[in-house]
Amino acid sequence: MDILEIIEKKEKNEKLSKEELEFTIKGFLDGTIKDYQMSAFLTEIDLLGLTEEETINLTNIMLNSGDKIKLDIKPLADKHSTGGVGDKTTLIVAPLVASLGVNVAKMSGRGLGHTGGTIDKLESIKGFKTEMTLSEFENQVKKIGIALVGQMGNLVPADKKIYALRDVTGTVDSIPLIASSVMSKKLASGADTIVLDLKVGKGALVENLEEAKELGNLMVKIGNMNGKNTACLLSNMDQPLGYAVGNSLEVIESIETLKGNGPEDLNELVIRLSSLMVCLSKNIKLEEATKKVKENLYNGKGYEKFKQWIEAQGGDLNTLKVASKTQDILADKDGYISKIDALKIGKLARALGAGRLTKEDKINHEVGIILNKKVGDKVNKGEKLLTVYYENKQVSEEEILNCYEITEKYTKKPNIIIEMIK
Amino acid sequence: MDILEIIEKKEKNEKLSKEELEFTIKGFLDGTIKDYQMSAFLTEIDLLGLTEEETINLTNIMLNSGDKIKLDIKPLADKHSTGGVGDKTTLIVAPLVASLGVNVAKMSGRGLGHTGGTIDKLESIKGFKTEMTLSEFENQVKKIGIALVGQMGNLVPADKKIYALRDVTGTVDSIPLIASSVMSKKLASGADTIVLDLKVGKGALVENLEEAKELGNLMVKIGNMNGKNTACLLSNMDQPLGYAVGNSLEVIESIETLKGNGPEDLNELVIRLSSLMVCLSKNIKLEEATKKVKENLYNGKGYEKFKQWIEAQGGDLNTLKVASKTQDILADKDGYISKIDALKIGKLARALGAGRLTKEDKINHEVGIILNKKVGDKVNKGEKLLTVYYENKQVSEEEILNCYEITEKYTKKPNIIIEMIK
Repeated sequence: MDILEIIEKKEKNEKLSKEELEFTIKGFLDGTIKDYQMSAFLTEIDLLGLTEEETINLTNIMLNSGDKIKLDIKPLADKHSTGGVGDKTTLIVAPLVASLGVNVAKMSGRGLGHTGGTIDKLESIKGFKTEMTLSEFENQVKKIGIALVGQMGNLVPADKKIYALRDVTGTVDSIPLIASSVMSKKLASGADTIVLDLKVGKGALVENLEEAKELGNLMVKIGNMNGKNTACLLSNMDQPLGYAVGNSLEVIESIETLKGNGPEDLNELVIRLSSLMVCLSKNIKLEEATKKVKENLYNGKGYEKFKQWIEAQGGDLNTLKVASKTQDILADKDGYISKIDALKIGKLARALGAGRLTKEDKINHEVGIILNKKVGDKVNKGEKLLTVYYENKQVSEEEILNCYEITEKYTKKPNIIIEMIK
Repeated sequence: MDILEIIEKKEKNEKLSKEELEFTIKGFLDGTIKDYQMSAFLTEIDLLGLTEEETINLTNIMLNSGDKIKLDIKPLADKHSTGGVGDKTTLIVAPLVASLGVNVAKMSGRGLGHTGGTIDKLESIKGFKTEMTLSEFENQVKKIGIALVGQMGNLVPADKKIYALRDVTGTVDSIPLIASSVMSKKLASGADTIVLDLKVGKGALVENLEEAKELGNLMVKIGNMNGKNTACLLSNMDQPLGYAVGNSLEVIESIETLKGNGPEDLNELVIRLSSLMVCLSKNIKLEEATKKVKENLYNGKGYEKFKQWIEAQGGDLNTLKVASKTQDILADKDGYISKIDALKIGKLARALGAGRLTKEDKINHEVGIILNKKVGDKVNKGEKLLTVYYENKQVSEEEILNCYEITEKYTKKPNIIIEMIK
């Protein structure tokens, strides 16, 4: 076998065997296949796609490239979001399902690009430890049903090396490459139940609904074929989720949501995600799971679990701080808000210091944006659209107003849930 | 501008501006654009193509990446072959047109892969110098109308760097990439007349006739747009050209052809190529040019020019030697030869030592193959198909017989010239 033959075979869009895919991934990991050759191969996949069978094989080859975590804990559920702006669902969903006896042993990432990362958000809380040994991690889950860390073990090294190359070669947006990347990592982390939150829209990795459905179906199929209870929600990411964008601002909004005061869209999404996790983990009906989830969201048990969790990992919630400088941005006309561009808002929050452009950048946990109005809301000229929380860096009023579209015609509030794939 | 934006624009198959192409080529040359990014970009071009305008822009950007040779000599003609098996046309065409007052100041390459290179063939002649300074080169052309060297100046460095990457990333067979590579080099070498010999078939870079026509038309258009008289012949490369394959064997066949005893297909091709060069350079009718070419092919003037040229560059024709060990391969049945696989014959000649697998390989000038029969010839069982000239390495009879197809049904001799594009 020879990588040039494989590249030429794929160029003709002929089906690749499991052995050919294995040769390619192994060769790239051991350095016999060079970056520039892998990049040609990934570009072909980006342009020509892979069959379902090829994607399933690729996922399993990647999964087997490193360690797999095995915990002696049941039921064990995991969730994954494909990333968006203002997406703080993990902070709410994880303790909420844990409060219902569904264990969560989760690894999360840092933010890069215009989207945030759960680990960055949690580090807004002083003292919160995001590194643990495997036995500390396992013990905490056994004790309180929840633990969350940054990274642990050498999970899916093939994905790390391939993702780094995709990031600099314009091959991030390929359906089979996203599916194999997400699912190999989820399968390696050892949960029995996997619930995916696939964001669709302007601020998401996938903008197109048809592609999102394809990706969602593919990931659910890969999960089920590997013996995991898998489901996927397609959720709207045209505008930011909830009102808060920025690390400590989002933690505060999560706490409010766990106290029963969450924004409508965020509330609905966390209920749906949590219900799916509970229903699949406990093998009960979705309606019953939803009822239990709502109970613990409104009776304070979810919030109790959240506090227990933060404390177990050394965090002190009293230290949560937001930037002291603020600027209100006011509407420049009357009308209905028909658009708040999530991608632009994410980039503005990053420009304020809430996110990173490169992995080496330091972030400022206290800066960000609090929206005052969302799509479908009526607004009068001079009324507050949002508040900027800033420190050293500022963004212009014009750039912020550019994220908005205000029309005379009434615009309906968009549904946060687009579709469920089970 | 940013290479990721350009890669993503091309992914959507949007047209690239001259500035974007220039940014890409310059960035690749200065190292700010990495191999793996260029490889993604070249793979996109290979799969999606380029528009004619983009290809023309790319060619000119590559042309302007290095030195251009300017000689004060008129008329000055050049030819280029896209490479085949047994292709010794330059050895015959160059002195033939020089004998008619059309100057040839030519740079040629070495063989790589299954095809031979003119420089390797000429080095079969002891003493023949393939390196000269620009003034030695210019003086020789002014004195005798012909000079041929390996490489001179820093011509089209963008092509050198891109070609090296194409070679290891499966992007050699892209029509716009071939066109820009060939034409940037031809334009940089300074001739007013460019005649292209585009090989089509099993032993050629381009196997498909429609693609060959597209490539030929594109190259002629690029040449003409740059103020050069350009024409292209599509010639058959399903079977080897002439009877000889291997360096000194091909030089000997070239001499025989210049003495008027050439094989039918080789004879026709050199007459057509030479006539085009003379007609375009002297601005006379093709019929008149053909008449003059035939005269000098059969009256010995072409051969006189050949001897003068070889002598001027220090070569001693008396030193030409072929391997002393030979093996005849006999037909295993009666019938008509319907196929001699040029690619396989080229690879067998390389296995004997006539060619290279890597740039570092040393070649043996004396080994090779002399065909005794060609497609369309009748053959009886036990009759000689070819003779192998070998030294240290040998190939099996079975492998050689595998290159042939002998059928009961009469097969017509194929036409060597498929089409002329002017």
